Amino acid sequence: MTKEELIAQIRTKKSFLCVGLDTDLDKIPAHLLQSEDPIFEFNKAIIDATKDYCVAYKPNLAFYECLGVKGWESLRKTLEYIPSNCFTIADAKRGDIGNTSKYYAKTFFEYLNFDAVTVAPYMGEDSVTPFLEFENKWVILLALTSNKGALDFQFQTDSKGEELYKKVLRKSSKWGTSENLMYVVGATRAEGIGEVRKLVPDNFFLVPGVGAQGGSLEDVANYGWNKDCGLLVNSSRGIIYSSNGPDFGEKASEAALEIQQQMESILRTKGMIN
Amino acid sequence: MTKEELIAQIRTKKSFLCVGLDTDLDKIPAHLLQSEDPIFEFNKAIIDATKDYCVAYKPNLAFYECLGVKGWESLRKTLEYIPSNCFTIADAKRGDIGNTSKYYAKTFFEYLNFDAVTVAPYMGEDSVTPFLEFENKWVILLALTSNKGALDFQFQTDSKGEELYKKVLRKSSKWGTSENLMYVVGATRAEGIGEVRKLVPDNFFLVPGVGAQGGSLEDVANYGWNKDCGLLVNSSRGIIYSSNGPDFGEKASEAALEIQQQMESILRTKGMIN
Repeated sequence: MTKEELIAQIRTKKSFLCVGLDTDLDKIPAHLLQSEDPIFEFNKAIIDATKDYCVAYKPNLAFYECLGVKGWESLRKTLEYIPSNCFTIADAKRGDIGNTSKYYAKTFFEYLNFDAVTVAPYMGEDSVTPFLEFENKWVILLALTSNKGALDFQFQTDSKGEELYKKVLRKSSKWGTSENLMYVVGATRAEGIGEVRKLVPDNFFLVPGVGAQGGSLEDVANYGWNKDCGLLVNSSRGIIYSSNGPDFGEKASEAALEIQQQMESILRTKGMIN
Repeated sequence: MTKEELIAQIRTKKSFLCVGLDTDLDKIPAHLLQSEDPIFEFNKAIIDATKDYCVAYKPNLAFYECLGVKGWESLRKTLEYIPSNCFTIADAKRGDIGNTSKYYAKTFFEYLNFDAVTVAPYMGEDSVTPFLEFENKWVILLALTSNKGALDFQFQTDSKGEELYKKVLRKSSKWGTSENLMYVVGATRAEGIGEVRKLVPDNFFLVPGVGAQGGSLEDVANYGWNKDCGLLVNSSRGIIYSSNGPDFGEKASEAALEIQQQMESILRTKGMIN
């Protein structure tokens, strides 16, 4: 999916919501466990319930890998099931030497046909650029993460006072363009989002941490907005585990609708829609 | 495998060689492509050919993931085939928020039964510690990598002149012990290995970059040695692709033996064996 197409979806659906498919056998409704592929059955119901209210889906690979071959099969079927007007993100946080990153890129962009994959920056340019060589595919680079451990290294300042996450932004923004490179910027660091926006005015941000992790949608919009909206705000647990009874789809739909309505109001206030 | 057991294997086999199973359908001998599971057939032959000369095997996940379900099945069979006296490393470079890292840990330590997994440090403590909670299992944390991109961020110095990779070592060495935490230290930065050794005197290093990437075994031993040897030196392409004809096993065996003999000589010089 191109940037232009993504922006069109945001306007059409009046939403910049990404639903995180962190599908966990220990948390899904018990009645699904009898089915042949409970992970896929759950995802299918969640997708049916939320697809009108979100523009993106983000399965986190950890939840699929831990089931081995069966998990990869559930993931593949999920990707096929997601409607083509939704942007798909493999939350995989990969990155390796160039020769190897190329194979990770093939996995996510060719075998599974995701639009985007999250990538970790520690190994530098040649670990990231192989992902940027695929047409209409995206890297979403970790910049400022939403967890407590973000404080360990991401805020280290150099002799000129520049934090590591800013160096990551400044350098990496030359490796790609706003047409193929987004950044992970955690909602739990709202003022940080503003700092990131100054450095990369045109790139989209994938923002985790709203909801269960405590970030506020209003803050994210205030600090992170750009002329194209420029935000994909993720919610996982807050939507998909709204109920663990037979009404889980309905409750997920309600939770997604509630966020979509807040987003519609923000999009209107910001002049992106009438 | 415990640290004590690993050191015993190094003494017994007179080797600190790790064979990297970066098994690539485009590079393995053509005659294997007819078999039902070429990746596993290749790995089996390489393991048979090298198991007396190495103490560890390191499949890089990228090469298996890119084949999807089939690749995961080849990987699982490979892990079952590796003799139990060999240390096994999932070169996966994972790392996510704590709740998610736990699932990655389950994948590699429980589902696939690896001894160790490589982890990226960018997200800090809570992305690493879930891997450290498994008994007799290891984290191998990226510190100083062998690729060109290592220069982008790992050498950033803070206001006191401390490089990022040193901060990673200093902080992370408190998260685990030398009984469950190793570091990736690239052979292409021999002097860097010495700097790392000063900061973490007791931890093992996994050293990629000898051979195809240009690092020297002698330099690695001179700069990285500790009282337990403290080194697992990896070679992938230099061993497994020594020939792409029917004699590939034999040639891999010769290549591994040659390195083992150099290592035996080093172990003797250093007084680890008689």
